Amino acid sequence: MNYGRTYNFSAGPAMMPEPVLEEIRDEMMNYRGSGMCVMEMSHRSKVFQQIVDEAEADLRALMNIPDNYKVLFMQGGATLQFAAIPWNLMKNGKAVYIETGAWSKKAIAEAKKYGEVIVAASSKDRNFSYIPDVSDLDIPEDADYVYICENETIHGLTYQQLPNTKGHILVSDQSSMFLSKPCNVADYGMIYAGVQKNVGPAGMSVIIIREDLIREDLDPKMPVYMRYDIQAANGSMYNTPNCWAIYCCGKVFHYLREIGGLEEMARRNEEKAKILYDFLDSSKMFRGTVEKKDRSLMNVPFVTESAELDAEVVKATKAAGYDNLKGHKSVGGLRASIYNAMPKEGVVALVEFLKKFEAEYNK
Amino acid sequence: MNYGRTYNFSAGPAMMPEPVLEEIRDEMMNYRGSGMCVMEMSHRSKVFQQIVDEAEADLRALMNIPDNYKVLFMQGGATLQFAAIPWNLMKNGKAVYIETGAWSKKAIAEAKKYGEVIVAASSKDRNFSYIPDVSDLDIPEDADYVYICENETIHGLTYQQLPNTKGHILVSDQSSMFLSKPCNVADYGMIYAGVQKNVGPAGMSVIIIREDLIREDLDPKMPVYMRYDIQAANGSMYNTPNCWAIYCCGKVFHYLREIGGLEEMARRNEEKAKILYDFLDSSKMFRGTVEKKDRSLMNVPFVTESAELDAEVVKATKAAGYDNLKGHKSVGGLRASIYNAMPKEGVVALVEFLKKFEAEYNK
Repeated sequence: MNYGRTYNFSAGPAMMPEPVLEEIRDEMMNYRGSGMCVMEMSHRSKVFQQIVDEAEADLRALMNIPDNYKVLFMQGGATLQFAAIPWNLMKNGKAVYIETGAWSKKAIAEAKKYGEVIVAASSKDRNFSYIPDVSDLDIPEDADYVYICENETIHGLTYQQLPNTKGHILVSDQSSMFLSKPCNVADYGMIYAGVQKNVGPAGMSVIIIREDLIREDLDPKMPVYMRYDIQAANGSMYNTPNCWAIYCCGKVFHYLREIGGLEEMARRNEEKAKILYDFLDSSKMFRGTVEKKDRSLMNVPFVTESAELDAEVVKATKAAGYDNLKGHKSVGGLRASIYNAMPKEGVVALVEFLKKFEAEYNK
Repeated sequence: MNYGRTYNFSAGPAMMPEPVLEEIRDEMMNYRGSGMCVMEMSHRSKVFQQIVDEAEADLRALMNIPDNYKVLFMQGGATLQFAAIPWNLMKNGKAVYIETGAWSKKAIAEAKKYGEVIVAASSKDRNFSYIPDVSDLDIPEDADYVYICENETIHGLTYQQLPNTKGHILVSDQSSMFLSKPCNVADYGMIYAGVQKNVGPAGMSVIIIREDLIREDLDPKMPVYMRYDIQAANGSMYNTPNCWAIYCCGKVFHYLREIGGLEEMARRNEEKAKILYDFLDSSKMFRGTVEKKDRSLMNVPFVTESAELDAEVVKATKAAGYDNLKGHKSVGGLRASIYNAMPKEGVVALVEFLKKFEAEYNK
């Protein structure tokens, strides 16, 4: 149906699948005969417990999550996890971080409050335009984990190969690539993602953590809300969770399974990204800012020759109905975020528009 | 319109105004010509900033919030605030708490992690069935604040008069009474409330705090997410907030203004509560568990002579379409939560049902 919806290239919160939004709309006044909206349901009720259980079951099926991993739904975004991760996982008070952009930098700054942080590799020297070599890192024996931001939303780069952790636990922030392609959960000790980029409404993080990493011998000063052991023991309902986000994300998990799962998402995302990168590589006006080998499937930053022209393009795209294309200030230029819910047609239309803009400009 | 909606007596999440839900439904696919659902909007976009600004403006108007108070929207529920409050507000490392039920108890337990907690009054001796005398508390000179849970959701009691803090700052958890009646904000240093009881969807707390209480000289170990100074300096958007909750709560704030503001809510809530309490006081089968002078307008716990009969009544109410009336395990019996959005008709219908049940039982 035509709702006059725009192609929204926001880096997050971002587009959601239209059929999911329609379902949510249709269940607003009375969810499946319960007599209430999901926003009105007691989180201790059977009807809501079923929503949580189904959401988790669909996510587990989608990602093939092994039984020895817990799934947690927590509030506070990746920002709260930046503190929760070192506080919960550091036993020896030491961890290795890879610095690849704005989000790993923030994670590093926060982790330093709770222990020693060793930055074993960084791409800071060229404004985070590439993923450093992580095949042979210098990792102390007693490091508690190796941390990566697997897709840097702002700088637009992603890992093609996971770091060689030399037997250490890998912790990955997958916020801006969560569910964009198949993922072997067993390669990680913990995966987490703010859902507002590639899944649903802001206000929730999904945490997938190997059970044996959940400890009880924690700093007594840690807020009870941030303790993974408490959250896990209470099925993410020690206190009232973000029920609405669980409901909406559950619908997206289910929808992704229905349309073919993560293999199909990878196929679609590669197809979409190729259309955009091929154009950037052939254009004389626009160029991508990231080394080709490390380009993100999800966030595509690009620039023209000048900030003035960048601004002109952003203005023109907005006027033409392509929203949120302005690049982040730390990279400049433009950025197209093309998450799971962005249809191929949106990318094709944007490329056509940029081609036309370039042609007009060169007339 | 008749959507087959039930009278939902949940203690929270709980009923929301039907006209608000209709508006949300109607804006789902395309919010006011923006081309997107609010869940899809960048939190840095103009269209969303307007939603935040309007929500705050409506709340300020509704509560007459003085200019020297900041309004923050944070995630993590009251549970995260239980830690954030002492950590942000304790300068001398000492605070006075009043213990009146489950929620003040939890706040006390958490605050002890961050400083000395003096429980200056308690009603623990009679299972929190009354508000202790708080007119002449023993408050150390150097106490940083006096803390109350102004309405205990589980035990169903509320303050008729605020404590005499003897010049100290008053901090109040208003979660289960927020916006239920007029409130003189200037009487408090800080008011906060999880919105999932009397306003909107779970996953957000509103914090109203006097500017001069917001400090920057804080424990470096505090997670950046929990710092009131950072949240205030960034308009609650240091990271992505719970955008959906801000949107929905903003609509409720606006709706409350339209139907007459907090004076009108107080009138309606007193009328509804009187219907239920009058019945309990006249019944031979049911009785309220709280001292009359301290009864909550919002949460009405009541019991029969036995746990078996309690269970029978709960089952019968559920079958008759009155939902979530089972009392909390720490009080037993039944509990009817009759927040702002519960229509008078719902309370009348419940009372009629209970009257009939009692009559049938005594036949």
